[in-house]
Amino acid sequence: MEDIVDHLAFERNKTQFDVDEMKIAGSLHAFEVSDKMARLVASDPAFRKDDRVVLDRKALFMNTLRKTAYAWKRIIELRLSEEEAAMLRSFVDQPAFTDLHWGMFVPTIKGQGTEEQQQKWLPLAHKMQIIGCYAQTELGHGSNVQGLEKTATFDPKTDEFVIHSPTLTSSKDIFLRYDFNSFDADLNSGGLVDWVSLSSCERSLDDHLPLPGITVGDIGMKFGNGAYNSMDNGVLRFDYVWIPRNQMLMRVSQVTREGKYVQSSVPRQLVYGTMVNVRQTIVSDASIALSRAVCIATRYSAVRRQFGSKKGGLETQVIDYKTQQARLFPLLASAYAFGFVGEWLKWLYMDVMKRLQTSDFSTLPEAHACTAGLKSLTTSATADGIEECRKLCGGHGYLCSSGLPELFAVYIPSCTYEGDNTVLLLQVARHLIKTISQLGSRKKPVGTTSYIGRVEQLMQYHSDFQKAEDGLKPNAVLGAFEARAAKKVIACAQNLSKFTNPEEGFQEFSVDLVEAAVAHCQLIVVSK
Amino acid sequence: MEDIVDHLAFERNKTQFDVDEMKIAGSLHAFEVSDKMARLVASDPAFRKDDRVVLDRKALFMNTLRKTAYAWKRIIELRLSEEEAAMLRSFVDQPAFTDLHWGMFVPTIKGQGTEEQQQKWLPLAHKMQIIGCYAQTELGHGSNVQGLEKTATFDPKTDEFVIHSPTLTSSKDIFLRYDFNSFDADLNSGGLVDWVSLSSCERSLDDHLPLPGITVGDIGMKFGNGAYNSMDNGVLRFDYVWIPRNQMLMRVSQVTREGKYVQSSVPRQLVYGTMVNVRQTIVSDASIALSRAVCIATRYSAVRRQFGSKKGGLETQVIDYKTQQARLFPLLASAYAFGFVGEWLKWLYMDVMKRLQTSDFSTLPEAHACTAGLKSLTTSATADGIEECRKLCGGHGYLCSSGLPELFAVYIPSCTYEGDNTVLLLQVARHLIKTISQLGSRKKPVGTTSYIGRVEQLMQYHSDFQKAEDGLKPNAVLGAFEARAAKKVIACAQNLSKFTNPEEGFQEFSVDLVEAAVAHCQLIVVSK
Ligand SMILES: Cc1cc2nc3c(=O)[nH]c(=O)nc-3n(C[C@H](O)[C@H](O)[C@H](O)COP(=O)(O)OP(=O)(O)OC[C@H]3O[C@@H](n4cnc5c(N)ncnc54)[C@H](O)[C@@H]3O)c2cc1C
Ligand SMILES: Cc1cc2nc3c(=O)[nH]c(=O)nc-3n(C[C@H](O)[C@H](O)[C@H](O)COP(=O)(O)OP(=O)(O)OC[C@H]3O[C@@H](n4cnc5c(N)ncnc54)[C@H](O)[C@@H]3O)c2cc1C
Repeated sequence: MEDIVDHLAFERNKTQFDVDEMKIAGSLHAFEVSDKMARLVASDPAFRKDDRVVLDRKALFMNTLRKTAYAWKRIIELRLSEEEAAMLRSFVDQPAFTDLHWGMFVPTIKGQGTEEQQQKWLPLAHKMQIIGCYAQTELGHGSNVQGLEKTATFDPKTDEFVIHSPTLTSSKDIFLRYDFNSFDADLNSGGLVDWVSLSSCERSLDDHLPLPGITVGDIGMKFGNGAYNSMDNGVLRFDYVWIPRNQMLMRVSQVTREGKYVQSSVPRQLVYGTMVNVRQTIVSDASIALSRAVCIATRYSAVRRQFGSKKGGLETQVIDYKTQQARLFPLLASAYAFGFVGEWLKWLYMDVMKRLQTSDFSTLPEAHACTAGLKSLTTSATADGIEECRKLCGGHGYLCSSGLPELFAVYIPSCTYEGDNTVLLLQVARHLIKTISQLGSRKKPVGTTSYIGRVEQLMQYHSDFQKAEDGLKPNAVLGAFEARAAKKVIACAQNLSKFTNPEEGFQEFSVDLVEAAVAHCQLIVVSK
Repeated sequence: MEDIVDHLAFERNKTQFDVDEMKIAGSLHAFEVSDKMARLVASDPAFRKDDRVVLDRKALFMNTLRKTAYAWKRIIELRLSEEEAAMLRSFVDQPAFTDLHWGMFVPTIKGQGTEEQQQKWLPLAHKMQIIGCYAQTELGHGSNVQGLEKTATFDPKTDEFVIHSPTLTSSKDIFLRYDFNSFDADLNSGGLVDWVSLSSCERSLDDHLPLPGITVGDIGMKFGNGAYNSMDNGVLRFDYVWIPRNQMLMRVSQVTREGKYVQSSVPRQLVYGTMVNVRQTIVSDASIALSRAVCIATRYSAVRRQFGSKKGGLETQVIDYKTQQARLFPLLASAYAFGFVGEWLKWLYMDVMKRLQTSDFSTLPEAHACTAGLKSLTTSATADGIEECRKLCGGHGYLCSSGLPELFAVYIPSCTYEGDNTVLLLQVARHLIKTISQLGSRKKPVGTTSYIGRVEQLMQYHSDFQKAEDGLKPNAVLGAFEARAAKKVIACAQNLSKFTNPEEGFQEFSVDLVEAAVAHCQLIVVSK
């Protein structure tokens, strides 16, 4: 056996920047929390990950149960803060039945439950005495949640809702099953049809079996080794299930004892605020996932030598091949860029929430379009980027031991959930076209669309890029991206204006509209 | 439960072409063989595939053993032809330890074994009394097979070779282990260093244990559910293993009893002929894999309805959205195009072999570059295309039951094996640059490079595309692709000419060279 040599030391010693500062990127505090939790998980054999890809489905699920319970125990024992606990869970790095409990169920109760409801359920949820999921989409309706078929009909006699899945397509298809769930149903109350969030006791708290009329099941194997197979995305069907009226989350809208649907004084727009927050997390997670892939591929490329040996000397490190660099380095840059955009989105979320409190809804549509677009752009780029990193490792990237197959399989659904990436870009495009159409009016473009206010000037733009180094001038780059986005959006708007039925035009030119939306989102990334 | 409705009938009835003719595409005979074998496999429960993704590694491997043996039994019972047998194996559709036995081991003995060697081994191989693999690359050398470290040293005393893996990096890393294997080693005989193919009895034919000095092992879990986990790609290491001289395949080159290395009269170029053949299969297989993905995504898109319901009517079929079409239809077209190119490559292979028999090697470099490039182009496009098809199915594409996760996982290594796709494009680029440099000489560009002979005219090319319909004129498309490829190649050649050391220039401009190679390969696809 050869001696073990640190083949990376050579590359590491060449750096011209401060490695520790580069690690920090965000805040020092965040780095310290993350570093501490990473070490905690890495040093504890109970969290080992290497056996994950060889476990069969059942063993893998048990493994998740065990790890999740153990993580919970450690969080209590070490009295970790909420931030630390979240970070620890993220390093355990195994999709779990508790992910949406923390990520969606608890925040939904906080955001949409009344004071009373929060007091009742949050303590139980925090102690995991109830574990919730998030059942919104149905077999027949994923992107179009307004087309959901499930109904909630109020029965004034019993003061209850009757929840019912009338068709096979209205079965919930992908969700987390557990003791509780929060979901959207078509509220069918006194002729009024609107949206409502309900919390229904789907399983008995005594024996954990589904309540009468409720069918639950596991949805079967999903993509890849380990990955989402560690948890039980499931199916759910209601056959006339009665639940008490007060299990409807009533902060934003209510159904009275008489069955009247009323709005509260809390702005409905709060719901959008939550969406901005969830998508912010997705963008930051894109940065993390891409960083991991890039890190693996970069280390492999530095260690791997292939061809180019002169006189029996060492062969060339593959990282020195320009083609390898051209494939790898833009992904490295993107991983950082997405991290910065994620940080900025945190600010945007705070800003939106502050404005909502003073009933200023003016920036909401722009914030909504911006987060939708960034979610789409960053998750698509990251999914493709992970696979490219795998290819950059040659045959070794195909082995699970490289870590890349599992990373890919666990990452790709983010292109689909929380909004299909194409559908989201079409939403962005709608917002851009609307922004243009309002140019003459008093509504001025705000935030990330404000460059559209300078559209006439941008249409005249001619690049003064002469040589490669010009690409290093931030203003030159920004100008070029602004002009590109503006030109694409204007071209679409002009094409649409030829249609008497705008919807028809939108369908006809949807491919160009998506392109314009992508250019707009790339501009946002470049500008932050 | 709703009634079962054939949601595809409506779409199928709309076709304006003859479906049966479209199915045939290649020859009627090929279609009939394929159709017969497909039905045979589909109707036999022993070949069921649905449980594949839930089996653990060991059970999956046993499942492959059972299916492979059963397939073999059926082939004998039904007296299937070689063509039918190959087709049946392809529909069993599960990577098996016998794949390289049929795909590489047997053809290598046929191509590089002497008459005597063929008579000795082929009958055993045909009856699967010996099962071979193909161990060429090593842990440390995949793309650069000329850098292999394993040595074969001739020992005149015993008339044997000593095979040795001197370092960890010279262990064979990815291969199929079984009773026999054919591999390449660095022949170290009397100071002469060259390449040689050997056949070594790696396992005892009595107890099937590895022979003394040979270490074999399984390489561990690979990407995805099912996929390549159904077989045992492995590691192989030799610690001074003696094998008889006559186990070297001696058709093309020989080592004499005295240890002298001699060339036979059979042209060495035959080896390249085999390579053309293997890559032809890969291109045809790309068409098949992409067709399957496109078929799934197209059917889903026709059945799936989302948004756009008017007055409570049906929602829009997602296949009617322009964005869905823009993502799906080019993949559909590519699946056909790759099929046609695959057919053409069959002709090319015959042509090359016919010429080799008359010692005409003139078209070999061009044929080699052409197949290398087409292998790269079609496998990359297919790998990306399968994943795009998965996304086109929304959340349902993430389920193994869609078939797409397994198809992706089993397909992607073809971007890496039989030549890493980037390395192959660089080879194509070298050939293009060489072709340009010989323009003044008597060597005229042949075959797929002949357009380079018209380079001056092509540099003047201006597209007369006016409207979308112009894209339907084959000659206009061809002209545009030729001009594009020519312009890119010439630009590279001009850049390279500025370097005194051509190799330095090649490294510096390798990214542009890869782009030019891609343009050239796309032109080939368009022209066939
Ligand atoms: C791992 C995973 C976990 C999930 N977890 C949950 C969960 O916890 N709770 C929950 O409620 N849901 C969950 N989902 C469901 C998810 O939200 C949906 O899959 C997603 O909304 C997409 O909807 P769909 O699957 O119906 O896709 P579809 O809408 O059927 O999309 C199919 C295709 O049609 C296209 N398309 C659709 N509409 C249009 C249009 N108007 N214009 C152009 N193209 C269009 C899409 O771009 C796509 O290519 C999960 C999904 C996955 C994969
Ligand atoms: C499923 C599977 C089955 C296999 N089966 C077999 C088998 O049966 N028998 C066998 O012998 N082998 C087999 N292989 C091995 C396969 O042939 C190698 O993986 C392949 O040749 C690539 O080599 P590598 O893995 O060393 O990649 P590397 O050469 O390490 O490539 C890593 C990266 O470096 C880049 N690179 C390398 N050289 C250059 C260069 N000169 N210029 C620019 N970039 C460069 C590549 O583009 C890639 O991005 C198999 C592989 C797989 C995945």
